Amino acid sequence: MPAVFDMSLIQCGARLRRTPFFEATQRYGAKAYTVYNHMLFPIRFADLEEEYWHLINHVTLWDVSVERQVEITGPDAFRFTNMLTPRDLTKCAVGQGKYVVITAEDGGIINDPVLLRLGENHFWLALADSDVLLWARGAALRSGLTVEIREPDVSPVQIQGPQAKPVVQALLGDAVLKLGYYYFLETKLDGIPVVVTRTGWTGEVGYEIYLRDGSRGDELWERIMAAGKAHQIRPTGPSDIRRIEAGILNWGADMTLEDNPYEVGLERLVDEGKKDDYLGRDALRHIRAQGVARKLVGVEIDGARLDFNATKWPVAAAGRPVGRITSAIYSPRLKKNIGYAMVPVPNAAAGTKLSVSIPGAGERSATVVPMPFVDPTKEIPKA
Amino acid sequence: MPAVFDMSLIQCGARLRRTPFFEATQRYGAKAYTVYNHMLFPIRFADLEEEYWHLINHVTLWDVSVERQVEITGPDAFRFTNMLTPRDLTKCAVGQGKYVVITAEDGGIINDPVLLRLGENHFWLALADSDVLLWARGAALRSGLTVEIREPDVSPVQIQGPQAKPVVQALLGDAVLKLGYYYFLETKLDGIPVVVTRTGWTGEVGYEIYLRDGSRGDELWERIMAAGKAHQIRPTGPSDIRRIEAGILNWGADMTLEDNPYEVGLERLVDEGKKDDYLGRDALRHIRAQGVARKLVGVEIDGARLDFNATKWPVAAAGRPVGRITSAIYSPRLKKNIGYAMVPVPNAAAGTKLSVSIPGAGERSATVVPMPFVDPTKEIPKA
Repeated sequence: MPAVFDMSLIQCGARLRRTPFFEATQRYGAKAYTVYNHMLFPIRFADLEEEYWHLINHVTLWDVSVERQVEITGPDAFRFTNMLTPRDLTKCAVGQGKYVVITAEDGGIINDPVLLRLGENHFWLALADSDVLLWARGAALRSGLTVEIREPDVSPVQIQGPQAKPVVQALLGDAVLKLGYYYFLETKLDGIPVVVTRTGWTGEVGYEIYLRDGSRGDELWERIMAAGKAHQIRPTGPSDIRRIEAGILNWGADMTLEDNPYEVGLERLVDEGKKDDYLGRDALRHIRAQGVARKLVGVEIDGARLDFNATKWPVAAAGRPVGRITSAIYSPRLKKNIGYAMVPVPNAAAGTKLSVSIPGAGERSATVVPMPFVDPTKEIPKA
Repeated sequence: MPAVFDMSLIQCGARLRRTPFFEATQRYGAKAYTVYNHMLFPIRFADLEEEYWHLINHVTLWDVSVERQVEITGPDAFRFTNMLTPRDLTKCAVGQGKYVVITAEDGGIINDPVLLRLGENHFWLALADSDVLLWARGAALRSGLTVEIREPDVSPVQIQGPQAKPVVQALLGDAVLKLGYYYFLETKLDGIPVVVTRTGWTGEVGYEIYLRDGSRGDELWERIMAAGKAHQIRPTGPSDIRRIEAGILNWGADMTLEDNPYEVGLERLVDEGKKDDYLGRDALRHIRAQGVARKLVGVEIDGARLDFNATKWPVAAAGRPVGRITSAIYSPRLKKNIGYAMVPVPNAAAGTKLSVSIPGAGERSATVVPMPFVDPTKEIPKA
């Protein structure tokens, strides 16, 4: 592998943006980049399983600047933001975050950001890969609400793994250890303005540090690496193995605009008692009353180690095509191929036998299983 | 170079979609892919200058399926689509296309698609890289208009170069030769449903074939390659050299949501006599009345051959920072480095001297010049 990734394999002019940590990721030997929210996203510095073991045994640093923010401010920012999501934001205090879905008028999932409430009328949405800025600006037209909607200069990193706590403690002091899950604090780190959240995409202990000044990315990165040195911190991509073990979904693969929250198991993000109106409310009530025709379920796929699926693999039941695998990967500690399948409700019960058609690997038998694959309350050998 | 591109350098799971021509592009040795509208986009099969010479001397085939369509239908489709753009669509006949900008309420450019009018109330927008589907669905809320807005199964390829005419003639017969610039016809090619347009991203003669059945991509690709064999057709990426020579802009680099049509030289796409209201109208009238503070201008950059810019290079005038180079590339037939700079109006006059700061190549002097760089009415040596 070359020391510096050949950007010409993916980049063509200045259309794709670089993150404030781009130079650092090059210096630390990023070996692959994808594109996410029109920005280059380092997804691998070493072998995926090596990165996975490091995450579950130590601590890892990810450049997730591609989680671009939509910032909503102005006198009606609360009312407007509460209109974008089925979650009841009257239950979200200033200083608190929520995992939310942004739904279209038909109940389809536009995005599944982490929402942070920075003030009574000040919100950030840390986005998955779709232009919610355009949706929100379109939805604000003729709404009668006074809001400003823009992309601020904010770029998160994730610090994830069992040693994440001592690393953020070394960086930011003891106050950060008191943060409850999905709470945050605004602070400075050697003068660098940041927001620190107790969130992550792993099921491990983790934090995100949202950099608020893009000119100081390199400084922040090196400050984190220095604080993590004693705990063997290393830069990695996000771990799809670990997030699938935890039952976490990836927008664009496991859920799309074509899917609603009831189909993908995110009904907990629809507050059915929510008093205020929101986009998608009528559709979601109708869907709930009717019931859904298909569901995203956990599956174990038999046989030898499979590579991470690059396409949605066809799924059959009793010889007939019924659905698709949206994500599938080999878990080295479960020693199984695990993933998700979107299948009709009659094929969604635990124990259902399925058959998966895998490009280059033929047909494999599979079984519907409960999620998550790794129960956070049970000890699993880590190495 | 490997025969098959290592997709793990860019892909991570099934989030990114593949085009109907993906297998064909792999088979024909695509060497680089970028991501555009959440889809893999083959950008290079050989050396960029080799592809450029082939384009200007022969004919090339590009997989531009990433130009995803937004389809607008329903009883108010004309009224709604006419509301999305400053161009006056009363002047767009059924069977005709237009190059348009989609503008936000503040006049910023959301996208610059080719619009096709397939029926009185049936439109396609062939998009640059932003989620206009979300903008349009947001803008339709509370509009009182009855429309359906969706992404249809439509995937274009471009056939570009001086030999494009005989290739499409061999494919589709003589009727296609009568197509005027930006007109189209709906037809079938060996039973494959397509729309053929006299459009392209080159300044050369060219056509686009919009495939209307994604399951038949491989068939269409091979049919085109067979028809083009006598004319030495070959698959390439889009040529940034040729499009910059022609003064064509690339959304995301040369224009963004932060720029308005008057700043980037697209005032011809704002029909000032348009009677119907549209999003951005008040803002654009105000901008026009006030005048703009900055302009995108053509520049020639002195010195040795430069590689295509991967970031927006800082530009100074009289020792003070004034703007950015948005695109810059070496033209092998002009034997010059050419590109665009966004600069304040006082620095925008032809002949203005600028200085460009280039990562790894130091400071270079540059001069503002008229566009396009290649005048279509003048003969330029092609090899």
